[in-house]
Amino acid sequence: MISMGFPTTGPTVGEVGERATIDTIMAAAPSHINGDDAAVLHHASPNSRAVATSDMLVEGRHFNPAWTTPYQVGRKAIVQNFADVEAMGARPQAALLAISAPESTPLAVIEGLAQGIAARCDQFAAELVGGDLTAGQQLVLSVTAIGSLGGNLPELALDAARPGQRVVAHGRIGYSGAGLALLASGIKVPERLHPLIDAHQAPELTPGRGVIARSAGATAMTDNSDGLVHDLGIIARRSGVGIDLSPVAIAPDALLKEAGELLGVDPWQWVLSGGEDHTLLGTTNGKAPSGFRSIGQVTKGQGVTVDNRPPTYKKGWQSFS
Amino acid sequence: MISMGFPTTGPTVGEVGERATIDTIMAAAPSHINGDDAAVLHHASPNSRAVATSDMLVEGRHFNPAWTTPYQVGRKAIVQNFADVEAMGARPQAALLAISAPESTPLAVIEGLAQGIAARCDQFAAELVGGDLTAGQQLVLSVTAIGSLGGNLPELALDAARPGQRVVAHGRIGYSGAGLALLASGIKVPERLHPLIDAHQAPELTPGRGVIARSAGATAMTDNSDGLVHDLGIIARRSGVGIDLSPVAIAPDALLKEAGELLGVDPWQWVLSGGEDHTLLGTTNGKAPSGFRSIGQVTKGQGVTVDNRPPTYKKGWQSFS
Repeated sequence: MISMGFPTTGPTVGEVGERATIDTIMAAAPSHINGDDAAVLHHASPNSRAVATSDMLVEGRHFNPAWTTPYQVGRKAIVQNFADVEAMGARPQAALLAISAPESTPLAVIEGLAQGIAARCDQFAAELVGGDLTAGQQLVLSVTAIGSLGGNLPELALDAARPGQRVVAHGRIGYSGAGLALLASGIKVPERLHPLIDAHQAPELTPGRGVIARSAGATAMTDNSDGLVHDLGIIARRSGVGIDLSPVAIAPDALLKEAGELLGVDPWQWVLSGGEDHTLLGTTNGKAPSGFRSIGQVTKGQGVTVDNRPPTYKKGWQSFS
Repeated sequence: MISMGFPTTGPTVGEVGERATIDTIMAAAPSHINGDDAAVLHHASPNSRAVATSDMLVEGRHFNPAWTTPYQVGRKAIVQNFADVEAMGARPQAALLAISAPESTPLAVIEGLAQGIAARCDQFAAELVGGDLTAGQQLVLSVTAIGSLGGNLPELALDAARPGQRVVAHGRIGYSGAGLALLASGIKVPERLHPLIDAHQAPELTPGRGVIARSAGATAMTDNSDGLVHDLGIIARRSGVGIDLSPVAIAPDALLKEAGELLGVDPWQWVLSGGEDHTLLGTTNGKAPSGFRSIGQVTKGQGVTVDNRPPTYKKGWQSFS
């Protein structure tokens, strides 16, 4: 069964007030680090460096309250931030959550968000260590992830791809875009296509893949947030290289093809420009690191090609357009 | 002259698009750390721990676009976050900025915010190292500050005040509340009262005061964000102590008295419950650290008193009420 829809009843945050709402968040996502002016993080490894990233999720723009649940939005908010930390080759350690919510927001919405955040943090051995809560016209979440980059190897920067390196990926590409299209279509989705919906509502990311890739010789890395061609295109531009993808390695699988037929959409569109999978995309000198598969080669050219031809789809997500 | 009002003309973020808006922010607040999936911070001192805090500012709630400028809002956003870092005895090192803005927002608003953020970061030898930009119904900023806590002394926690210690403060208390009241009154404010307006629009905080206090024997610390009695009340409750303030030490000064007479308001209200000064309030075993003054004593009682009597004003800021 697909879980969908935000709670619309029960006491609201305006009714219970700020203190009770914060208490609800802290009960759902407890941490003994939380509660002071600022959170002091545990020592990770000696001389590790802090890594930080923020993402904002706006109701009606980044999530549709009719198509998901607060719990799933919370899980997704953490994964998309932790994917950015993993994409540096670092270990996610803590999250901060700032929420702006209309006074009419049911407390159950905030509680579900916090539970989803806690569940995902837990999976990464991380904690929700602080944040802020305020009234506003629209539900807006801002999640900050803090990670720890240990050891002496360089971080996995966007400008570190070199010709001759292998392009690798961890996780499924195109599933989130297909899931969104299925939700938007309003059709009754056959159960075997539910993994596509799941991937959109709350994408999965195996903890530690970025750290493993860094120790195994990866050079550049990013996450598939705005679309495969778009995101690899940033690595290509920053590194001054070309990236040629193998059409066999990234070809839509059976589920994507079935969803494509059902909706009358070319599933390559989801693979090449869907985004929001928050899977890891990188380059490496050696073999594909554990959990990664080879999807292409770094070349002396420029931009992203598929079998040396321009990709059929490439537009990525834009906030204002 | 008082600077007030947000720009309302010129190209909008919807017109110039996401990329140009981000470029504008990065030109106003440049950092070579910015621009990857996540920012990797420089090593501070060996084995220093990361300290993190987030605050959200909502247009019409935390700032009134008629009464301030984007530049001042940017400065204030940094000071209120860095004050939380200083209140741990840590050094602010970096900031992240997530913005949600209506497409009709003039680009000049975003540029002013970024310039104000850059100016304040600069003062603290910190940098804007990352963030996010998205469309939304309302202008919402979420600022995260990352700091560095070096050395072996404990952080300045809210629960570390002990009876017999001195209560100390750095910076002016009540000025922000008075400035807000002057702005809200709509009267023409005499020039000599402008420091009160300035303190509300963009409060000042001398960099390094928290670090100095920690090295000089301070125990607990917080910043005056929600009101003197409210914020010290949190230290008192968490530490299981009472705090008795000296009425002489915190008495309204000449400017506050003059503003009070002008508006027919008891200036003690601003001192005791105004908040938003983002000055540092702490407790210490020794003398007042450099830059701090003594304003009271930690007692074996409970709650906050003024000369052993309940304070006349004590309500602090609440998000939902």
